Amino acid sequence: MATSTKAGPLVGVIMGSDSDWPTLRAAAEVLEEFGVPYEARVVSAHRTPLDMARYGRRAEARGLRVIIAGAGGAAHLPGMVASHTVLPVIGVPVMTQALHGLDSLLSIVQMPAGVPVATVAIGNARNAGLLAVQILAVEDDRLRARLHDYRARLARESRAKNRSLGAEK
Amino acid sequence: MATSTKAGPLVGVIMGSDSDWPTLRAAAEVLEEFGVPYEARVVSAHRTPLDMARYGRRAEARGLRVIIAGAGGAAHLPGMVASHTVLPVIGVPVMTQALHGLDSLLSIVQMPAGVPVATVAIGNARNAGLLAVQILAVEDDRLRARLHDYRARLARESRAKNRSLGAEK
Amino acid sequence: MATSTKAGPLVGVIMGSDSDWPTLRAAAEVLEEFGVPYEARVVSAHRTPLDMARYGRRAEARGLRVIIAGAGGAAHLPGMVASHTVLPVIGVPVMTQALHGLDSLLSIVQMPAGVPVATVAIGNARNAGLLAVQILAVEDDRLRARLHDYRARLARESRAKNRSLGAEK
Amino acid sequence: MATSTKAGPLVGVIMGSDSDWPTLRAAAEVLEEFGVPYEARVVSAHRTPLDMARYGRRAEARGLRVIIAGAGGAAHLPGMVASHTVLPVIGVPVMTQALHGLDSLLSIVQMPAGVPVATVAIGNARNAGLLAVQILAVEDDRLRARLHDYRARLARESRAKNRSLGAEK
Amino acid sequence: MATSTKAGPLVGVIMGSDSDWPTLRAAAEVLEEFGVPYEARVVSAHRTPLDMARYGRRAEARGLRVIIAGAGGAAHLPGMVASHTVLPVIGVPVMTQALHGLDSLLSIVQMPAGVPVATVAIGNARNAGLLAVQILAVEDDRLRARLHDYRARLARESRAKNRSLGAEK
Amino acid sequence: MATSTKAGPLVGVIMGSDSDWPTLRAAAEVLEEFGVPYEARVVSAHRTPLDMARYGRRAEARGLRVIIAGAGGAAHLPGMVASHTVLPVIGVPVMTQALHGLDSLLSIVQMPAGVPVATVAIGNARNAGLLAVQILAVEDDRLRARLHDYRARLARESRAKNRSLGAEK
Amino acid sequence: MATSTKAGPLVGVIMGSDSDWPTLRAAAEVLEEFGVPYEARVVSAHRTPLDMARYGRRAEARGLRVIIAGAGGAAHLPGMVASHTVLPVIGVPVMTQALHGLDSLLSIVQMPAGVPVATVAIGNARNAGLLAVQILAVEDDRLRARLHDYRARLARESRAKNRSLGAEK
Amino acid sequence: MATSTKAGPLVGVIMGSDSDWPTLRAAAEVLEEFGVPYEARVVSAHRTPLDMARYGRRAEARGLRVIIAGAGGAAHLPGMVASHTVLPVIGVPVMTQALHGLDSLLSIVQMPAGVPVATVAIGNARNAGLLAVQILAVEDDRLRARLHDYRARLARESRAKNRSLGAEK
Repeated sequence: MATSTKAGPLVGVIMGSDSDWPTLRAAAEVLEEFGVPYEARVVSAHRTPLDMARYGRRAEARGLRVIIAGAGGAAHLPGMVASHTVLPVIGVPVMTQALHGLDSLLSIVQMPAGVPVATVAIGNARNAGLLAVQILAVEDDRLRARLHDYRARLARESRAKNRSLGAEK
Repeated sequence: MATSTKAGPLVGVIMGSDSDWPTLRAAAEVLEEFGVPYEARVVSAHRTPLDMARYGRRAEARGLRVIIAGAGGAAHLPGMVASHTVLPVIGVPVMTQALHGLDSLLSIVQMPAGVPVATVAIGNARNAGLLAVQILAVEDDRLRARLHDYRARLARESRAKNRSLGAEK
Repeated sequence: MATSTKAGPLVGVIMGSDSDWPTLRAAAEVLEEFGVPYEARVVSAHRTPLDMARYGRRAEARGLRVIIAGAGGAAHLPGMVASHTVLPVIGVPVMTQALHGLDSLLSIVQMPAGVPVATVAIGNARNAGLLAVQILAVEDDRLRARLHDYRARLARESRAKNRSLGAEK
Repeated sequence: MATSTKAGPLVGVIMGSDSDWPTLRAAAEVLEEFGVPYEARVVSAHRTPLDMARYGRRAEARGLRVIIAGAGGAAHLPGMVASHTVLPVIGVPVMTQALHGLDSLLSIVQMPAGVPVATVAIGNARNAGLLAVQILAVEDDRLRARLHDYRARLARESRAKNRSLGAEK
Repeated sequence: MATSTKAGPLVGVIMGSDSDWPTLRAAAEVLEEFGVPYEARVVSAHRTPLDMARYGRRAEARGLRVIIAGAGGAAHLPGMVASHTVLPVIGVPVMTQALHGLDSLLSIVQMPAGVPVATVAIGNARNAGLLAVQILAVEDDRLRARLHDYRARLARESRAKNRSLGAEK
Repeated sequence: MATSTKAGPLVGVIMGSDSDWPTLRAAAEVLEEFGVPYEARVVSAHRTPLDMARYGRRAEARGLRVIIAGAGGAAHLPGMVASHTVLPVIGVPVMTQALHGLDSLLSIVQMPAGVPVATVAIGNARNAGLLAVQILAVEDDRLRARLHDYRARLARESRAKNRSLGAEK
Repeated sequence: MATSTKAGPLVGVIMGSDSDWPTLRAAAEVLEEFGVPYEARVVSAHRTPLDMARYGRRAEARGLRVIIAGAGGAAHLPGMVASHTVLPVIGVPVMTQALHGLDSLLSIVQMPAGVPVATVAIGNARNAGLLAVQILAVEDDRLRARLHDYRARLARESRAKNRSLGAEK
Repeated sequence: MATSTKAGPLVGVIMGSDSDWPTLRAAAEVLEEFGVPYEARVVSAHRTPLDMARYGRRAEARGLRVIIAGAGGAAHLPGMVASHTVLPVIGVPVMTQALHGLDSLLSIVQMPAGVPVATVAIGNARNAGLLAVQILAVEDDRLRARLHDYRARLARESRAKNRSLGAEK
């Protein structure tokens, strides 16, 4: 994997339905901000289980290094893809109408011993994208430097809000 | 399927781990009480996802008519097997240590449109067995008659408890 | 039951109030898609308990084979009808204003040993309809074939969404 | 009802199973303390639904004035009995293994408009007994006087605990 | 109390704030439908605790026979009024913004042994009114007859909905 | 209040029942560690509501400066005492059998605007004691110094645990 | 601290983001009503953790006596600031989209022994402001007098609502 | 970082208290199984916040590549360490007495945008260890090969359980 050409996607952003895209888009945007090549796919654990299995099993050979999977309700996609690959899988619990994503969260995070899913906050695909970057940055000094820049920017923005709060009052 | 020989199992009782057997056993016991041939299998959605897929996809051809699947936590087994077969799949949420099966329940019952799982109460595999019998009895007059007998027995036992409560007081 | 004429309904879709119809309608639509004759009834466990008991007790003789019951809050209808019949009863937890259907779900799914209710996701009457079809299809090769077609269509639609997601990006 | 002889029970204490008696017994004890005649019955909404309906429908004519009903899980007994009578029905949510009585509570308290159940705390059958006495005392000066005595005793006991806490320290 | 003139209110409908009136109004409407004299009061457990104590302590002497108390959040009003009177107190958990009335429900229903509150469903003040009527009807044949009429009307309306559902389809 | 003699208690530790003392004792122990005079009382909001009101109303004149109130279930004591005094009231949600203190927590913390209760973690009376000390220390340099010492000790103990973890491994 | 000039703020109102200001503003308004000098700051535990640590560590020396901290979700700000100061810290759980502030509440209130946070109701910053005033009033007779006035006004307003409810009916 | 000598630890396993070690130990065991050098530390966000900040800020320079942080209740450690480093931080919600780890889970997973924590199941430190290995394996072919071996072993063990279940029956 060390020699993967940058042409291919390093992160797969997958979701059970295109109705999850408004949530998952934020992960893609982060990856673009950090210049990490990615792909976005609809891969349903329940409607196309064999496609999903194939996606998981081929991910490593295709050069993917991290998978971000978003799903809602009985959100099986992240855990099932994780069962088909040894790549790190990040799970994004998507908000649901009745239980507001608590079902999604528990279905994603409560994985049994052996097959972890790195779960982020309900609906917080931006953090899934950042976590993917942090994972890739473990062995990538430039990416890590950009993460430090990003954090510094967050701090600057937070301090600016502090000042404008003072001004507004 | 109408001509399936009685030799083969009609119900598959599957579970993610043998630690679920103390719960699932009650389903098997019901099936034995009603004389319904069944098989019990450890089929892990997360540890043997391809076995699980194969089990689901071959179930119909093997003569199974109903599948009972028990799992705990991020309980993907019932829903994933259901995605691989059009046979009715009954889900049994297994009690868990931290969340007492609420995670199992939501992970099993909150399936998306297209792939239902017939969910029973947390830890109540006996009812999963009965539901399987009720499904098989839809086209089996003798089995239906036995269900009526069973219900009559439940009623008699309940009335006997009423009498002994009166006696005890 | 094997000789029931196709003229009569095979599935009873019942609900506690006509305010549940916007939810339950999806079950009826599925049954129409699959050509399964059904009836829809308002039968309230709390307002017309004797009608409800009669409905349950006569269902089998009237030729019904599966009952779909939707209810919200202290949702007693599915479980009570199930106590009056040995036909499979599918419960649909209807969304509620305060607790968003968590009360409906627990009231329906947590049935005691002896009387199961096959519970589907909160508000997901479409899956109740599909589960009814799957149950009827256990002994009906043509219906089972249609279920396979349906699943194939779901997969095609999911793959189409995947392609259009790629195009949109 | 005003002329009911004191010989017959005024309160019916019913439960779905004799396993609920260790909880419900506390209601019976209160009624004995206050000299209110009562009866205790196992009447299962799910195993003997017709007995349950009959119990509810005949309660008024039999001279009962209040019904206390305890149940656990999908606890339909209180609400179903309430649908068969216009007597006040007090519901006692019985503790359950998985969800600790939260399921029982919601199944009992979340009744639809038209058929109330007077719900008390999870497992608190003593309060169900007291509420029954309070209801009977609305038109019974002597019973009301005894309730005032009881409250005074509670206060005395509480003050004694306060003193012994001071002594212990 | 047996000789109370009908002139004075028999039921006190109290609430912590006038913002609860849109919920509690339904209790008052039921009492008007049944011709039960009542009063409606804002009595805050937290803002006017002494008024609240006085209201509770004087209720019996003023001729009240039942108190309906609605409150939201840390809903102390029903339980505190109940601690000041031996009249039956019916608690109505009012919907809240953050926790949707689950906080109100638990704060009202989970009373300790000695001081029960007859709790109804979240936001269901109509049932609180009906429960008050049912309690008053224990010793009032005419009121009980009206309750039977009311239930019969509920059943007729439910059956009419059933017919119109059939027509609509 | 600035000249209060140290002879009288500065903190009132109250609880609804002596069964809460095993929990509340930890608050008393902290106060002893910090040399803050206190009193411990059983004052039940539900069994002795007038005593409770009097306790709250007289607390300020008696020289108390902070009140710690522990209660479980429909835990009204903290909020009701707070409605009778303008002294800071610290609420300790006591663990309960069925809902494990979630009911206590919500009943204590969800107070309406106007009457706050300073709520600490479920069962964590030690923190209630510390919070009382922190409040008293706002105007007491010596007490504040002792709090700094206490925090330094916590840090030392934590570092010692770190070292022994390293040794153990 | 006893000689702090009134010129400097006595209460620090801090929040993780300016998006929390619409909630926290109510705390500031209370402080203004009571004439308590305060400051409002955006101090993010996650985006500017060192600023946050510095804010906490310098608060005492800067003359602050109470800190009000509002945060939502994994709401670390109140607890982390509390770990850096021995001043009383009041936590305001901010409403969140998915879990409606239940996450915020648990993250704030469930602090470990040693570092308490005085938690108020979800979204109830007004009570945080009042609690800060109550804490400052422990050693300030004039402020305490104003709190009594405030409570008297609350009572008057509540009684006025009672009268207008009577008029409206 | 690419040239880190294997002498130093690559993973930091930290916990708020040594009482979390029985949970976290499972993460350490996985790292040992995979031959990944690690360190285990008690670093309390609340008792030693500056140590915690320093640990987070120095982690990258010290050669750590992943941090596993376990905590219970208002579990701030994972999120706070994550705010001090751009290394991936894996959070392990530790079981708690009252809320069974639901508080820990929400406090860890519901992080705001900008600072993710990769959360695993309640009490499942084994999966935290595996996730750390998976992250390190992204750029380490040998480690990835060992993960494939591990998964193969899981599958073999699962199949063996299946066979022994068949034998046992």
